[in-house]
Amino acid sequence: MSFLGDMLAAITERGRSLTDFTALPQATTPAEQTAALCHNLLRSRGEAIALATAAEILRRYRKQDRAQRIGFFRMLLDEFGPDMEPLVAAARAFSTSPDERAAEALHRLSEPRRQDLFRMLNQSAHGTAELIRMRADLLDVLPDHPELEPVDKDFQHLFRSWFNRGFLELRRIDWDTPAAILERIIRYEAVHEIKDWDDLRRRIDPPDRRLYAFFHPRLRDEPLIFVEVALAREMAGSIDFILSPERKVLDAHEADTAVFYSISDCQPGLRGISFGNFLIKQVVEELRADLPQLKRFVTLSPAPLFARWLAQNMPPDIGEALQDADWWRDARKAASIEQSLTASAAWYLTGPRSAAGRLLDPVARFHLGNGARLERINWLANTGAAGMASSHGIMVNYLYRLGDIERNHETYASGQAVAASAPVRRLAATGARLLEVADTNGGTS
Amino acid sequence: MSFLGDMLAAITERGRSLTDFTALPQATTPAEQTAALCHNLLRSRGEAIALATAAEILRRYRKQDRAQRIGFFRMLLDEFGPDMEPLVAAARAFSTSPDERAAEALHRLSEPRRQDLFRMLNQSAHGTAELIRMRADLLDVLPDHPELEPVDKDFQHLFRSWFNRGFLELRRIDWDTPAAILERIIRYEAVHEIKDWDDLRRRIDPPDRRLYAFFHPRLRDEPLIFVEVALAREMAGSIDFILSPERKVLDAHEADTAVFYSISDCQPGLRGISFGNFLIKQVVEELRADLPQLKRFVTLSPAPLFARWLAQNMPPDIGEALQDADWWRDARKAASIEQSLTASAAWYLTGPRSAAGRLLDPVARFHLGNGARLERINWLANTGAAGMASSHGIMVNYLYRLGDIERNHETYASGQAVAASAPVRRLAATGARLLEVADTNGGTS
Amino acid sequence: MSFLGDMLAAITERGRSLTDFTALPQATTPAEQTAALCHNLLRSRGEAIALATAAEILRRYRKQDRAQRIGFFRMLLDEFGPDMEPLVAAARAFSTSPDERAAEALHRLSEPRRQDLFRMLNQSAHGTAELIRMRADLLDVLPDHPELEPVDKDFQHLFRSWFNRGFLELRRIDWDTPAAILERIIRYEAVHEIKDWDDLRRRIDPPDRRLYAFFHPRLRDEPLIFVEVALAREMAGSIDFILSPERKVLDAHEADTAVFYSISDCQPGLRGISFGNFLIKQVVEELRADLPQLKRFVTLSPAPLFARWLAQNMPPDIGEALQDADWWRDARKAASIEQSLTASAAWYLTGPRSAAGRLLDPVARFHLGNGARLERINWLANTGAAGMASSHGIMVNYLYRLGDIERNHETYASGQAVAASAPVRRLAATGARLLEVADTNGGTS
Amino acid sequence: MSFLGDMLAAITERGRSLTDFTALPQATTPAEQTAALCHNLLRSRGEAIALATAAEILRRYRKQDRAQRIGFFRMLLDEFGPDMEPLVAAARAFSTSPDERAAEALHRLSEPRRQDLFRMLNQSAHGTAELIRMRADLLDVLPDHPELEPVDKDFQHLFRSWFNRGFLELRRIDWDTPAAILERIIRYEAVHEIKDWDDLRRRIDPPDRRLYAFFHPRLRDEPLIFVEVALAREMAGSIDFILSPERKVLDAHEADTAVFYSISDCQPGLRGISFGNFLIKQVVEELRADLPQLKRFVTLSPAPLFARWLAQNMPPDIGEALQDADWWRDARKAASIEQSLTASAAWYLTGPRSAAGRLLDPVARFHLGNGARLERINWLANTGAAGMASSHGIMVNYLYRLGDIERNHETYASGQAVAASAPVRRLAATGARLLEVADTNGGTS
Repeated sequence: MSFLGDMLAAITERGRSLTDFTALPQATTPAEQTAALCHNLLRSRGEAIALATAAEILRRYRKQDRAQRIGFFRMLLDEFGPDMEPLVAAARAFSTSPDERAAEALHRLSEPRRQDLFRMLNQSAHGTAELIRMRADLLDVLPDHPELEPVDKDFQHLFRSWFNRGFLELRRIDWDTPAAILERIIRYEAVHEIKDWDDLRRRIDPPDRRLYAFFHPRLRDEPLIFVEVALAREMAGSIDFILSPERKVLDAHEADTAVFYSISDCQPGLRGISFGNFLIKQVVEELRADLPQLKRFVTLSPAPLFARWLAQNMPPDIGEALQDADWWRDARKAASIEQSLTASAAWYLTGPRSAAGRLLDPVARFHLGNGARLERINWLANTGAAGMASSHGIMVNYLYRLGDIERNHETYASGQAVAASAPVRRLAATGARLLEVADTNGGTS
Repeated sequence: MSFLGDMLAAITERGRSLTDFTALPQATTPAEQTAALCHNLLRSRGEAIALATAAEILRRYRKQDRAQRIGFFRMLLDEFGPDMEPLVAAARAFSTSPDERAAEALHRLSEPRRQDLFRMLNQSAHGTAELIRMRADLLDVLPDHPELEPVDKDFQHLFRSWFNRGFLELRRIDWDTPAAILERIIRYEAVHEIKDWDDLRRRIDPPDRRLYAFFHPRLRDEPLIFVEVALAREMAGSIDFILSPERKVLDAHEADTAVFYSISDCQPGLRGISFGNFLIKQVVEELRADLPQLKRFVTLSPAPLFARWLAQNMPPDIGEALQDADWWRDARKAASIEQSLTASAAWYLTGPRSAAGRLLDPVARFHLGNGARLERINWLANTGAAGMASSHGIMVNYLYRLGDIERNHETYASGQAVAASAPVRRLAATGARLLEVADTNGGTS
Repeated sequence: MSFLGDMLAAITERGRSLTDFTALPQATTPAEQTAALCHNLLRSRGEAIALATAAEILRRYRKQDRAQRIGFFRMLLDEFGPDMEPLVAAARAFSTSPDERAAEALHRLSEPRRQDLFRMLNQSAHGTAELIRMRADLLDVLPDHPELEPVDKDFQHLFRSWFNRGFLELRRIDWDTPAAILERIIRYEAVHEIKDWDDLRRRIDPPDRRLYAFFHPRLRDEPLIFVEVALAREMAGSIDFILSPERKVLDAHEADTAVFYSISDCQPGLRGISFGNFLIKQVVEELRADLPQLKRFVTLSPAPLFARWLAQNMPPDIGEALQDADWWRDARKAASIEQSLTASAAWYLTGPRSAAGRLLDPVARFHLGNGARLERINWLANTGAAGMASSHGIMVNYLYRLGDIERNHETYASGQAVAASAPVRRLAATGARLLEVADTNGGTS
Repeated sequence: MSFLGDMLAAITERGRSLTDFTALPQATTPAEQTAALCHNLLRSRGEAIALATAAEILRRYRKQDRAQRIGFFRMLLDEFGPDMEPLVAAARAFSTSPDERAAEALHRLSEPRRQDLFRMLNQSAHGTAELIRMRADLLDVLPDHPELEPVDKDFQHLFRSWFNRGFLELRRIDWDTPAAILERIIRYEAVHEIKDWDDLRRRIDPPDRRLYAFFHPRLRDEPLIFVEVALAREMAGSIDFILSPERKVLDAHEADTAVFYSISDCQPGLRGISFGNFLIKQVVEELRADLPQLKRFVTLSPAPLFARWLAQNMPPDIGEALQDADWWRDARKAASIEQSLTASAAWYLTGPRSAAGRLLDPVARFHLGNGARLERINWLANTGAAGMASSHGIMVNYLYRLGDIERNHETYASGQAVAASAPVRRLAATGARLLEVADTNGGTS
């Protein structure tokens, strides 16, 4: 890779001397000049000039501020869509006589020229990484500029193709991994913060801890997504225990359960290009091959919106107790609300649906959609400040049982009941009663 | 890669046990069953079933004979094109009010479902390699079945994206390269046959010989294209000399010229996805970095259609001499036709054009299109049987001069005169006179 | 390695400019100059000069012919032994009062200065490889110059230390191994010639074939010793079958037997520094880890001196038949001597001993000394010209049974009976009767 | 390596089941049992038993406390020396007729059997590392038990052979190095403590910082010694500046000076097996190859015993000022003693000699012995607590000039004057006057 990078850089350097960027129309603004470069790039046929032009566009882009970038994206929208005139003709022709060849013409002519532009930018030395950053910028401004969505569609189209799962590489991350990658793991961990290198080491070096990441060949040292796994002798119910520096280390060959306790997407610019589902299943296979005695694969997951939802659906008996932020340190007080709180959580996770018919909890949607089963609600499982604030310390085990994944997935996809264990279903029913709603969920186990 | 492959194989294995392929409609033919699997694959959402289905489709495909494969491609054409009904509606809507969003809908709806099918097949363990072989099969039958071209268009679209130059890796091949790759180099050499391992070694092991290849990360040990280079103290004019086992080996640091004497595409299934242009230029950069004293980069190329063309445009004075296949072994006879033959070759390479306005020689088109200059015509440069039969022993040097590549390329692309050295231009003028045609080529040097 | 090599070469280059080798005494012969350089090297303390001097000594040595090398070794013997004067004093002191410290002084003073010289030559860029070649030269001349044995003793002492088994690395050789190593495998195979690359591939690429070699970190691409293994469903009795290009390939996981059919030492200069014993046992462990279903580890070995021995102990009934070199092609003739020939072989392998009490067959000595058991005599197992000439086509299976190795080894080392299977013991008894000798071998099985 | 390790472990495991360690004489103490195992090991010939025995000895050794280890070493001294009886005979024979062969016998018989014991322990899975630790233990107790020195001699003899510079590998350590190695770098840094991972990163990641280490193939991830280098535009005079997080980073290609500011030995058990000299010179070559524009190679070194020496040789005018630990924070006070303090340091470094005729400062001895020149004394160059306490903030530049190294080295080795720059020589002369001693050092520059 570095060799390729070097060569591209060298060719680019050469191109730069062949072409004179200052020869761009003098009277124009920098934005107009960048637009002119983009048009040049699409027209160019020579390797060296094309690479130099691509590098120059990316260099200029990097220096732009937010407002200028919005201008850049709008320029891509306005000037690099499909060529409308021939497309209109093709659409009419197709309407008259709709056959395969006319459809092919339609497809070809309707492809926004942006896609070709992105393909050519991708040939630049760090093109793929730069385009991922560019899309991250776009996603940032998209809520305020929904008209830019067609530009995002083109990014998505290309990224889906380039990051086809067939091209991803799974690697185990451990204490023999280069520091340059480990440093990124520390930075990208999004669920349970890695405090320092000692904390990291506790998650990758002991025999009962694993960390796996997907990489793309073009982004050598940049993980795309990673998952952290604890090997245990039971279905771990508390993140506090998993991350404790004092816990007793287990021989991996004595474990019977793999607990997926953290999944982090690393590249904001790849949002929506989903790897998580596949990562979990590939890691399951890897662990099974390595440790055949494992018999349970389960997550230990947050319920990130539970507290927010509960605030608006507060059962009368616990609202008061929760006023005191330290309620959970008082064993009696805690015991008095355990049943209500876990039942509310069970209901929250399985019952209410949004207008679009979706479950409310995004993590539940992800795992249940992948074919997992909601196995257990854990009480006082995450007593860190963030965990208490977002979910009153509740954590959830989702169970991946290989024989059931397909069926659970199909059931979930068809909009039917949520796959949950019998205790969780009972808890949810209690929650529904408590909250005085009808339990519409006749979920199977 | 092998790990990923293993995992995919394992997941696939699991999937196979989850789904029952024999449950396909019993009364149907194998072809109908394969079609049903393709439809299943597009509908499937679960990882394991999708991978198992993809593997099963590829397994069935591999066992098919030519006639069955034609049937398979026709099925892809008929059943996996775009969904016509909504596309007609979208085309009408767009015709009425042609805006960016309507164009986007058109683009999305006009994408043949084949593309998604291919993307899903690509996730299978050796998916990319299998798809490349599948397209090679398609190219084989395409001349007799031009109606299948839309299917080929979809292959091309995806391969262009997946084999974007940004994803290719240049590697030097030498005597420390694994035998599994070297064996493929022997097999794929298409210009000057590699007779055995000793012959190969003479091309990669001595300090004045280099071989570079492009690889794709998903096709670990499969070269896509490679180029063979001889380092020399002059512009080599004879392949016989370059390949001679007796030649004196040169210290690489004493060479001033790099001679590209063979370029071979390795994957018939990637035809039209061009790497050659970029490969040459990247190798030039690599050699310049490694051996800064090099000052000339030149090819030693065949003129593969020259003899065929000459047979129909035979100057009277040489036709008789060429009757005797061994004419070149007789120094006097050879001398008597040298001028006419080289002049005819010069004219053939630079003058006549096809109806489409293109030069007749494919190798000349490639190098001149890349920005090289036709530098020298070499007499009795390839006296092997194949070389004598195809081009009467003529070989050609195309010169890549970094400062001129862009200009040459632009000139050529604009359909103007061919870039050629003054001697070649004079020879070509002689050839035109000889053949009694008007020399329309006022080529620059 | 190459980096270290480069650096050493650079330092050496520098050193060369610092010191003037022509400043060596002018009147002297080249041999005297080399001797002077050796003395300089031992005295030198500076890195650069020492490295340059070492390189110069090795360069001069390489250019010497056989006679000059003998002179060089004699110079090492005469001028680089221990310093006699202080050693005599120390020996007297020790004789008077023999304690640990006096012994230590004795040891230190009795070390020939050659050892330090060799240690310093070893620091040169390819020093280890050069010293191995130097000893190979010495071994060549030793039979004619037994007085040089002390020099060889010093080589042995250092090589035993440097090639301590703790420093060796076992590598599997297969079709993904660099050609530079494979080429050496072809060259070094000493038992069953590898004819060409296709023959090599048949021995390393199919799933039921393995080749393992020991390497030393300082000799990166130079195997020290290697063993070839065939995986089979029985105890293979014929090398003709193992090497046949037409044989049916077996899935490795279906094999129950590993047949070690060839072991080759690669470095003549390391003669007597034994690796074979350890190699076999390490490969057994490697195979057991990889293919746990294997239950038998056996060699298929030649009996290289059998024909020679038999010529002097010919049983009357077979001498005549063997006159005809093609006797074995005549099934009836072959059948008529099978019993006598195999019985003679069994006796030859287990019965007669040399004056020193050793078995006559070197291969038998090696495997029985390692703790193997003589399991089976194979008839017409190697009908190649060499096999017929050296052993009338006989080959031998030695069985390595892990539980018995230690006991067999101890029994053998104590000079007692040879470990052999019951059938082999019966055959040997028959052979003894046939040859009219007393069977003194009451070997256990 | 890990493969070899695995195999050795497996073989060992097997051996353990073959032999019964509990069968050792029951009545004996653990120490006697360990001694019996050592004798067994030397006698053993079988691979498996030998490996198992070696592993068992090392396992028992590891569990011993200091007193038991002293007992173990004494056992090695008493029971594993040379066999005295035949040695006495050989010594007498040699005294009578001292020739090469008799000397060889003497050498062989005088080798303590410990050496063979260590060679066999070295074959164990982590044998080399274990033996290095064992010698570290021995060095710990040696001051109190000088009678054990012969045992240390044997360690030294073997380590010199195994760690011959020809077997060492130089590696650059940077941010792409596995964390397992980086962690050891942090731990082993002995001169200027590495506080945390950020501090480490500042020393290996910026383009103007380098760290190189020697490794041995048998100790894969264990550095033997490393050196830290700062690239600069001048001869850096202050460690405070070099380690400052705020300093401006330099482009490596703009540097003209390489400053070796820290050298750390990593393995206490390899004390006296010197690598430092060679490391510096190899790194100089590496840097020259990489950055040809570098023209100065210099150390920034401590003067670790200066304060201790000065306390006993205090010039009257500065003793009082130094009473106040914070004297250097008061610019006027500092200025008042600068001249006296630096002159005293210059004298300390170059003038006074020990009874054995050696310079007093160990760092000066090391660099001057390597052929460097004492170039500059730096004032207030290390104001950390340790630096102030040991050397009143003084640091020293030693200059490695390639053309002078040999001469300087020879001069130094011959016991003559110290190589020092003119300013340093003048300073030393001042120091000598100040301290009222005769300046015997007419050192050349």
